[in-house]
Amino acid sequence: MSDDLLQRLREALGTQHVLTDESDVAAYIVDWTGAHSGRALAVVRPGSTEEVADVVAACHRAGVAIVPQGGNTGLVAGGVPDGSGNQVVLSLGRMRAIRDIDPVAGTITVEAGVVLADVQAAAAAAGRLFPMSLGSEGSCTIGGNLSTNAGGTAVLRYGMTRELALGLEVVLPDGRVWDGLRGLRKDNTGYSLKDVFIGAEGTLGVITAAVMRLFPPTPVRATAWVSVPDTASAVTLLGLVQAHAGAHLATYEIVNRAALDLVLTHLPGARDPAPGATSDWAVLVELAGTSDLDAPLEAALGEAVEQGLVEDAAFAGSSAQRSTLWALREGISEAQKVEGATLKHDVTLPIADLALWTDRITPILESILPGVRLVTYGHVGDGNLHFNLSPPVVDGGNGGDALLAAAGELTSAIYDSVAAARGSISAEHGLGSTKAAAAASYKSQVEVDLMRAIKDALDPQGLMNPGTLLA
Amino acid sequence: MSDDLLQRLREALGTQHVLTDESDVAAYIVDWTGAHSGRALAVVRPGSTEEVADVVAACHRAGVAIVPQGGNTGLVAGGVPDGSGNQVVLSLGRMRAIRDIDPVAGTITVEAGVVLADVQAAAAAAGRLFPMSLGSEGSCTIGGNLSTNAGGTAVLRYGMTRELALGLEVVLPDGRVWDGLRGLRKDNTGYSLKDVFIGAEGTLGVITAAVMRLFPPTPVRATAWVSVPDTASAVTLLGLVQAHAGAHLATYEIVNRAALDLVLTHLPGARDPAPGATSDWAVLVELAGTSDLDAPLEAALGEAVEQGLVEDAAFAGSSAQRSTLWALREGISEAQKVEGATLKHDVTLPIADLALWTDRITPILESILPGVRLVTYGHVGDGNLHFNLSPPVVDGGNGGDALLAAAGELTSAIYDSVAAARGSISAEHGLGSTKAAAAASYKSQVEVDLMRAIKDALDPQGLMNPGTLLA
Repeated sequence: MSDDLLQRLREALGTQHVLTDESDVAAYIVDWTGAHSGRALAVVRPGSTEEVADVVAACHRAGVAIVPQGGNTGLVAGGVPDGSGNQVVLSLGRMRAIRDIDPVAGTITVEAGVVLADVQAAAAAAGRLFPMSLGSEGSCTIGGNLSTNAGGTAVLRYGMTRELALGLEVVLPDGRVWDGLRGLRKDNTGYSLKDVFIGAEGTLGVITAAVMRLFPPTPVRATAWVSVPDTASAVTLLGLVQAHAGAHLATYEIVNRAALDLVLTHLPGARDPAPGATSDWAVLVELAGTSDLDAPLEAALGEAVEQGLVEDAAFAGSSAQRSTLWALREGISEAQKVEGATLKHDVTLPIADLALWTDRITPILESILPGVRLVTYGHVGDGNLHFNLSPPVVDGGNGGDALLAAAGELTSAIYDSVAAARGSISAEHGLGSTKAAAAASYKSQVEVDLMRAIKDALDPQGLMNPGTLLA
Repeated sequence: MSDDLLQRLREALGTQHVLTDESDVAAYIVDWTGAHSGRALAVVRPGSTEEVADVVAACHRAGVAIVPQGGNTGLVAGGVPDGSGNQVVLSLGRMRAIRDIDPVAGTITVEAGVVLADVQAAAAAAGRLFPMSLGSEGSCTIGGNLSTNAGGTAVLRYGMTRELALGLEVVLPDGRVWDGLRGLRKDNTGYSLKDVFIGAEGTLGVITAAVMRLFPPTPVRATAWVSVPDTASAVTLLGLVQAHAGAHLATYEIVNRAALDLVLTHLPGARDPAPGATSDWAVLVELAGTSDLDAPLEAALGEAVEQGLVEDAAFAGSSAQRSTLWALREGISEAQKVEGATLKHDVTLPIADLALWTDRITPILESILPGVRLVTYGHVGDGNLHFNLSPPVVDGGNGGDALLAAAGELTSAIYDSVAAARGSISAEHGLGSTKAAAAASYKSQVEVDLMRAIKDALDPQGLMNPGTLLA
């Protein structure tokens, strides 16, 4: 049976694009964190929408499950196969064409396997801005961004991936192709099908191409690193910056002391930009536009100083200084990886409750695992914190083991607390296979039933990325 | 059977909120255009989510269809019953509570029956902006805006209703309540259920409340009426304004000479703001922000004059002058109504093709009905034209009859041409019962099947607003 399928896949794609040797498939069956790996019947690499459709139709007939995969940079094991060895990994990596770019309309039509940074570059070459930006942009793909409704540092101004997508092309679970590649800003002619597939993590079909929005470029920046006394001050400062800078506010990120210390330790040449501060919290704020923006940023920060919201601040006086400040923010994830075990959480809180929540959760976690280090950073302008736990620093160096031993209890405490505050346990990473069950446990039965009804309607055989998103 | 149902509805809502007398139901069974009317088994006016759920559950058990209705300002007969007399009209008009407003989080939680202007006013009273604005804002309701994914004059900057909604409360077709009233900017924990119900025109459930986004206010405006030689110049000018004003561009509306003439004729005191122009086209452009915006608008228009894109222009030098310019744009719909029969179309074109399209369609329509007047206006920044046809001016005054006689042919010519250009035959009005069949005829079978699969999954009995959206 599986031999038949492999034969058909080889006929459809050519032998070289159906990988089965252990060394060939190795990179596709383990996730970026290294914590999740599986086995695959095969890894297939179609080069066109038609070939994707052939693969999906063949698997559909054979009753074999498919795991779509983009740049394999996910953090929730949503793009790697399970351990059965019965699933086909469908990599979109060869679908890298930019089919069209229209600077007047402000649209770019890209295939799913185009790397995010290449979308940004193509837009820039056409005098336009594709604003989405996130740590893995050099290797993640736009198809993966769409399937997970990725966020990043530009959400505050431009929205999630969903809000940047105008149209999609999708191979449905039975192998038919839905051509929804419209580039219209307004189209009220029925259910918003694109929104059903965006963020569905490959459980309803395979996104093969998309029309994404482009924007006028914003070459002028005003950037500052601002040390603030506490998270409440960070939220208050956000309001001041919004009042002074309005639509120009592009980025508002928070970094706590533990996160900054990790970067200062592990990033060569990194220096504390606000050494006069003793507080635990800092924000990276950036305005972006087409004319000088120093004045509104200085006005906002001046008012903030008067209100006691600022301990120390550093303005970027040049593009190089700006890069230095951004490197501190962007280096956290890698720096934390160097230190070994990390328990990652990606939560949203209602922003008005965010400060209270961070104050409330800290002693709870400390009581579960004394000395646990809270490495907290993220997109505070969206209410989104990457709330990662690093091991306690202990003699004998077994802090990592202690962290892993307490992992379940720590994560449950965080999720319970987030749910009680009507927050989200996955702001931008999605559910994958690691959070699907937890998410369901915090949802109402009505909501779980609705999700299941949609899944059953579009993928009645349950062959699209089973175990991801829906437990 | 229907007597039983009426009895149950009276028990649930009180007799005074179950209308069956002809005079009581009259206003609910005919649409705003007056062209579409039906009959109703009853008009029910529940006052709470629980009462809506009771109504829907009772109708579900009785197998009786429900037509949800907001402010009854729709243009596509999506909120009025058919002629059978067997449908229950469910008016949300009594659900007018503003449940919560949080200026820090930038959210407002409103019940479905709150009038759009009241949402705007509540936001303003809290020092925030709810940007959605459209002609019927004094009587349309936020529930109707959500169910139709309404557009308006602020879409260019803030997006459609969909992009302004963070969470929903929905009564499902079986009477269960989905509480999705989350106010989070980022929440990737499963399918985006809210996006399934937004724009579904009441065919999948009844939206009873929503969490909507609020924004920092933009009290400073720069507004101009600019006469341009042709639609191509309007599109080029848009790019110039974007380049100079970037994120401050709030509104970019187009009005043709026939539309302006109607307003000048029928709106008391109206005057042509750019009398030096002889061209057929003008745009109303507005920047909005927190500090002076005259400079970027003047810079953009200065460059436009050099490029020959401007025939004449009038700046609003005061708030009163601004209102005068806006009145010209906002008066078109009423002015056209005064002249009798109108054939309305609400189309989107890819903006790069918009000028070509308007040039192409004009002689086609003229050949079908000589002298037909094209009253064209709308949200050209979004590629969205309200492309309305008024009768030829003929001796004997029977132009209206000629228009109605040719209506089918005229509309088909417009829709065929829009579809060929990969545009949309409903930009912001929805499909209702008047456009559902036409929309399906331009969609692929795959797309129709997907829509039908979602409908069948969520409303298997087909009792929610039958005949609307899906023919």
